[in-house]
Amino acid sequence: MRKGSQSLKRNVKFIVKYDGSAYAGWQRLGHEKSLSSIQGILEENLSLLLKEKIKITASGRTDAGVHALGQVVNFHCNSGYPLEKLQVDLNQKLPEDIKIILTEAAESDFHSRYSAKSKTYEYRIDQNEKACVFTRKYTYHYPKELNTTAMKSAAAWLIGTHDFRAFTTDKNEDKSTVRTIESIDIYPYEEKRFHNHSKELRIAITGDGFLYNMVRIIAGTLLEVGEGKRQPEEIKKILEGKSRKEAGITISSSGLFLIQVRY
Amino acid sequence: MRKGSQSLKRNVKFIVKYDGSAYAGWQRLGHEKSLSSIQGILEENLSLLLKEKIKITASGRTDAGVHALGQVVNFHCNSGYPLEKLQVDLNQKLPEDIKIILTEAAESDFHSRYSAKSKTYEYRIDQNEKACVFTRKYTYHYPKELNTTAMKSAAAWLIGTHDFRAFTTDKNEDKSTVRTIESIDIYPYEEKRFHNHSKELRIAITGDGFLYNMVRIIAGTLLEVGEGKRQPEEIKKILEGKSRKEAGITISSSGLFLIQVRY
Repeated sequence: MRKGSQSLKRNVKFIVKYDGSAYAGWQRLGHEKSLSSIQGILEENLSLLLKEKIKITASGRTDAGVHALGQVVNFHCNSGYPLEKLQVDLNQKLPEDIKIILTEAAESDFHSRYSAKSKTYEYRIDQNEKACVFTRKYTYHYPKELNTTAMKSAAAWLIGTHDFRAFTTDKNEDKSTVRTIESIDIYPYEEKRFHNHSKELRIAITGDGFLYNMVRIIAGTLLEVGEGKRQPEEIKKILEGKSRKEAGITISSSGLFLIQVRY
Repeated sequence: MRKGSQSLKRNVKFIVKYDGSAYAGWQRLGHEKSLSSIQGILEENLSLLLKEKIKITASGRTDAGVHALGQVVNFHCNSGYPLEKLQVDLNQKLPEDIKIILTEAAESDFHSRYSAKSKTYEYRIDQNEKACVFTRKYTYHYPKELNTTAMKSAAAWLIGTHDFRAFTTDKNEDKSTVRTIESIDIYPYEEKRFHNHSKELRIAITGDGFLYNMVRIIAGTLLEVGEGKRQPEEIKKILEGKSRKEAGITISSSGLFLIQVRY
């Protein structure tokens, strides 16, 4: 993957936090659209600061509207720019919806995507009758009553190593669709203060890797179970059937956060 | 204040929650600007729904950018529109940053401003080195270290009934500037989850009424005490001096919430 010359370069790791509302996603798609992607914004600003062309790799390419509390990225550079100063100076240049929260010198063979052992994504579902005015960009509004016991039973079928072909919209049949899900935590999050009663259901999914749209389809399927449209046991059949048509809908990216990446 | 005919009208009370970021404040300033104010948005939509001209009164006119968790408003109408349906239908029409969270039939003499016994405003101060990407519109970013013990001592001087002339930018000398502050709570609010470490200091001020810019000047002065630029005892002198010049700066409205109104 990496050119031989890069082994002489410094490898820098960032942890990045971003509000994805205003962006077309992580991935840079051509030069024109460079500033509509988080990757583009970071690369343009870093290249200016370090006075060399910088290419950034992320642990995963978050979709349009997806937020990150702890996206991990890395890049190689020749510049000897002091790292602490780099974070301060770069944050000064970045828009207020993207911030570097940690900067580290990484081992030369560290790769934010290939070296990742597991990732946690979290869906935040606003269960209030009316979407909360303050969290509307950070939640998926779904006011229907949900049976969380059924959702947890359904989630249990997904834990472990399975072929998740039914849970992706990626049609490339050559790539392996086997992944391991370590855990799915379904928990309520409430904030009650004066008249501000905010009621959320959160679904945190940790796994060794996720296929295209996999988190969104899993969350969509679990919501259908929660609503009583499906039985928890159906998950087993969906996994075995390996057909996208059997699983639930791909829910909106609004409310989805990349929480943490472990190495 | 009220016309005689209004005693025959229904008096309706709403509790309203809004994200003030996109608005020029509560108050409607002429017809052209009707949709840039929260009052304008509510009046236009209510008038359409009830098919009569509606005039709304709020407990207080929040400034541009100020948010509300529990603004209380009331209006008189002839319409017999069922109240539960009114809230649902109005919320359907309102933009996603303004929502009615409670609707009640009020006594005919209820007035959201004159009947109010006390109000609580809260300042949320983002103490992180870099402003949090998710709360940047809902906090005032102030990364300097603050001595909260000194701030609490300073706040103690403000409790009770005082002439707050030094704490307002309203130059009308005919109006009384005596107000009663019931409490000032200064407390840290932290959320630590993975790499998302959000650190806030919150200042909640409850009083029987507030002069123009009073909450913002009190918060600005308390921050100067917290930074060590002023001694807590100076507050006594500022109150006695009754001169705006003696008090601290009027800090930005960003981060200010109208939390609750009591009757």
